Amino acid sequence: MIQISGGVTHPHGFRASGVASGIKRSLRPDLALLFTDRPAAAAGIFTTNRVRAAPVEMCAERLSHDPGRIHGAVVVSGVANALTGPAGRADQEEVTRAAAELLGVPPESLLPAATGVIGPRIPVEKVRRALPEAVRQLASDREGSSHAAHAILTTDTGPKEAATTVRLADGTRVRVGGMAKGSGMIAPAMGPLHATTLGFVTTDARVTPAGLERLLTREGDRTFNMICVDGDTSTNDTLLAFSNGAAGGPVADDDPALGTAVGQILESLARAVAKDGEGATKLLTIRVRGASDSEHARRAAKAVARSTLVKTALFGADPNVGRIACALGYSGADFAVEHLNVSLVEGARNLPLIVGGIPAPGLDNGGGQRIHAVLQRQQEVTLDVDLGAGPAAAVAWGCDLSYGYVHINAAYRT
Amino acid sequence: MIQISGGVTHPHGFRASGVASGIKRSLRPDLALLFTDRPAAAAGIFTTNRVRAAPVEMCAERLSHDPGRIHGAVVVSGVANALTGPAGRADQEEVTRAAAELLGVPPESLLPAATGVIGPRIPVEKVRRALPEAVRQLASDREGSSHAAHAILTTDTGPKEAATTVRLADGTRVRVGGMAKGSGMIAPAMGPLHATTLGFVTTDARVTPAGLERLLTREGDRTFNMICVDGDTSTNDTLLAFSNGAAGGPVADDDPALGTAVGQILESLARAVAKDGEGATKLLTIRVRGASDSEHARRAAKAVARSTLVKTALFGADPNVGRIACALGYSGADFAVEHLNVSLVEGARNLPLIVGGIPAPGLDNGGGQRIHAVLQRQQEVTLDVDLGAGPAAAVAWGCDLSYGYVHINAAYRT
Repeated sequence: MIQISGGVTHPHGFRASGVASGIKRSLRPDLALLFTDRPAAAAGIFTTNRVRAAPVEMCAERLSHDPGRIHGAVVVSGVANALTGPAGRADQEEVTRAAAELLGVPPESLLPAATGVIGPRIPVEKVRRALPEAVRQLASDREGSSHAAHAILTTDTGPKEAATTVRLADGTRVRVGGMAKGSGMIAPAMGPLHATTLGFVTTDARVTPAGLERLLTREGDRTFNMICVDGDTSTNDTLLAFSNGAAGGPVADDDPALGTAVGQILESLARAVAKDGEGATKLLTIRVRGASDSEHARRAAKAVARSTLVKTALFGADPNVGRIACALGYSGADFAVEHLNVSLVEGARNLPLIVGGIPAPGLDNGGGQRIHAVLQRQQEVTLDVDLGAGPAAAVAWGCDLSYGYVHINAAYRT
Repeated sequence: MIQISGGVTHPHGFRASGVASGIKRSLRPDLALLFTDRPAAAAGIFTTNRVRAAPVEMCAERLSHDPGRIHGAVVVSGVANALTGPAGRADQEEVTRAAAELLGVPPESLLPAATGVIGPRIPVEKVRRALPEAVRQLASDREGSSHAAHAILTTDTGPKEAATTVRLADGTRVRVGGMAKGSGMIAPAMGPLHATTLGFVTTDARVTPAGLERLLTREGDRTFNMICVDGDTSTNDTLLAFSNGAAGGPVADDDPALGTAVGQILESLARAVAKDGEGATKLLTIRVRGASDSEHARRAAKAVARSTLVKTALFGADPNVGRIACALGYSGADFAVEHLNVSLVEGARNLPLIVGGIPAPGLDNGGGQRIHAVLQRQQEVTLDVDLGAGPAAAVAWGCDLSYGYVHINAAYRT
C-alpha cells in the first residue's frame, strides 16, 4: 500500500468543496459538500451520547432506510445543531433539502453532519445563500478535497486528510480516501448506531451497505473509538463511509486488502485528531498487551489516554510512572500489579519505567533525568504496557494537557 | 446540631499530633498520629484501584481481623507507598510497629495511611526518628487536631476539619469530629473494601464495628464518593472511622442523630476537598433530581463534575450550557433530552439554563451575559439538574480547571 497525498476525492467519482457561509464570525470556511453522481453504499457509526444532535438523528434514520443509494454529505461547522429541539431538526432538513435540490438528487440521499457550539441553531438563510457556490465549486481534484477538509474544522489547527490506492484479490485497483476534524470534546464512543469528531471515508471499491457497515464498525472501533482528548464524548460524533463502486470489479466486502486500506486511512486520521487535540504539544500512543481480553486491553489503554494527571505530566515531560500505574489500576482492566511492566519507546529501544510492579531501578536518580530528556525531545511519545494477564492487546491515542487547553476552553464566548 | 470549630480530638478520649519527619523536602509536617487510649471500634472504606498502596492493603487486613480494638492511625504524607512491592509493605509494617511500641499498644491496633508521590519508598529511618516527638505531642485539645490536620496535607492549600456535638435518642451527648486531605488525584470510588483523599472521623459514641461500617459505607458513598477533582481514582484513598464509646450510653448503631452527625461531618470535609482541588478557584455543586434510580442520579452528577469541558467553562465563567448537556448525555443516565431542565442557583432563585432540552430563552443574547456575571461573582456555583425521568436524586461536588491546575501537575519533579 502506498499512502498518497490526497483526501476524499482520491477515489474515482467523488467531488468535494468547501465555502464560507458566515456561520463562523471569522468568515473562515464552514460549509462542506461531498458528492458522488453515482449512488454509493453508505454506512455510519454515531455517538452514544443520549443528547444526539439533529444531524446525527437524521443520518442514522436515512442510513436505516436506504443505505444503498446515497449521494454524499452536507457538513456545517461552527454550530453543532444539538440541544435545538424540533426546530433544529427542521433546520437540518431544510439545509439538506436545499442542497439536494441544487444537486438534483433526492433529499434522503444526502447525509448531514455538524460540529461546533452546542445550543445555537443553524443560520439556515446564510447556509442556503452559500449552497449554490458550494455546488459550483465541487471538484474531483486535490483542491476539492482540501477545501472540504478545511471547511469542517472548528478549533483544529489544520486539516486532516489521507488517501491510498490498493489492488484487491481479483486484481482490481481501488482507491480509499478520507478526511476528519476534531480537536476538543473528543472521546468517541460510537456504536453500530452510535466524538465531536467527524470522519468521512470514500472508496471507489464496490461494497454492499452491510459489508461497508461491518468494515466501518470494526475499523472505527479500533481507531476513532480509541482516541481521547478530553474524555468528553460529544453529541455529534459521526463517522461515515461511502463506496460508489466506480472502480468496477466484483463485490469486495471481505477483501482483506480493502479492509487493511480502510483501517489505515482511519488510523491515520484518528492519530491526526489526537495529535491536534486542543492545546496539545505531544501525541501520546499507549500500546497495551498482556490483557485478559480485548475489552480489558481497550479500557486500560483508554484510561491512560484520558487521565488528566498523565496528560499534565506528559506536558511537563515528567516521568511520573505512578500516574500511569494509577490510571491502569482504576481502568477496570484485570491485572496483578506485580506482573505489570511499562516502558517508554525510544526508536528501536524500550526504556523501562515500571518493572514487575515497581519503578524501574534508578528512575529516582539519574534515570529519571534521562527519561525526562527523552519525553521533552519527543513530539510523539509511545508507552508500551504489559499487563501480564493474558493474550489481548489494544492501542489508544491521546495528547498532553497544556495551558493552551485551558485557554481555548475557558474563554468566555458570548 | 451545632457545627463546632474542631476536629478529630473533639470527641472525648482522642488525642492527635503532627510533626515534620523530613519526608517532605520542604520540612513541612508530614507525620500525623491519631490515638485513643480506650480501644475503639473502627471501620474503613478504601480505593477500588487495582494498584492499592501498601497502607491500604494493611488497613483492610487489620480491619477484617479485629475491628473492635483499634487504637488509632499513623499517617505519612509526601510518599504514597504505592508501587513499592513487598519492600513497601515491610516499610509500612516497620513504621506502625515502631509507633505501637512507643504507644504501648499491639501493632495490629494501629491503622496506617499514606499520601504523596507514587513510586518512592517511605524513608523509614526518618519516620522512626520523628515518632517519639509525635507521641510526646499527642494532645486532646484543638491544637492536637490542628497539627494532625496539617501533617496529612500534600498539595492542599489548607487543613480540612469539622466537629459537632449531638444528643442521641436516649439523651446521651456524643461528639463527632473529622479531618481530611485531598487536592489532586481525586475521584474517590471506595467500596466496603474499597480517593488520594484521606478522611478520618472520630466519635465518642458507642458503636459496634459492624454498625460503624454500615454508617461509614452509607455516608461515605453519599459524600466522599461523590467528589471529583480530576477523575483519577487514587491508589491510596482511605476513609476511616473510630468510635471509642467514651461518651457512655447504650449502643448507638442505628441512632438517627448520630447518622446525621457523621453524614454532616463527612459532607463538610468532602466539600472542603472539592473546593481545595488543585488550582481550583470555584466549588461546583451539582444537584441532580428526576433520575430513574439512585445510580443514574449519581452517574449524571459525577459526569458533570468530572467533565474537563464543564470545568474549563466554569473557570472562564462561560455559560456554556451545551457542555453540561453533553456530560449528562454520556453519563450513562437514562433520560429524554426533551424533558431535561438545568438551572443555576442564585440565592433563593433558579436562573434557567436549559428548559425542555433547549437553551433557556434569551441565553444567546443578554441572558448569557447575566449568567456570566453570576458565575464570575460566585465562588460556589450550584447547578440544579432535573432529568425528568423518575424520582431519584444525588449530589456531586467538583471544581473548575484552571491554569493553576496545569502548573501544579506539569512541574517536573526529579
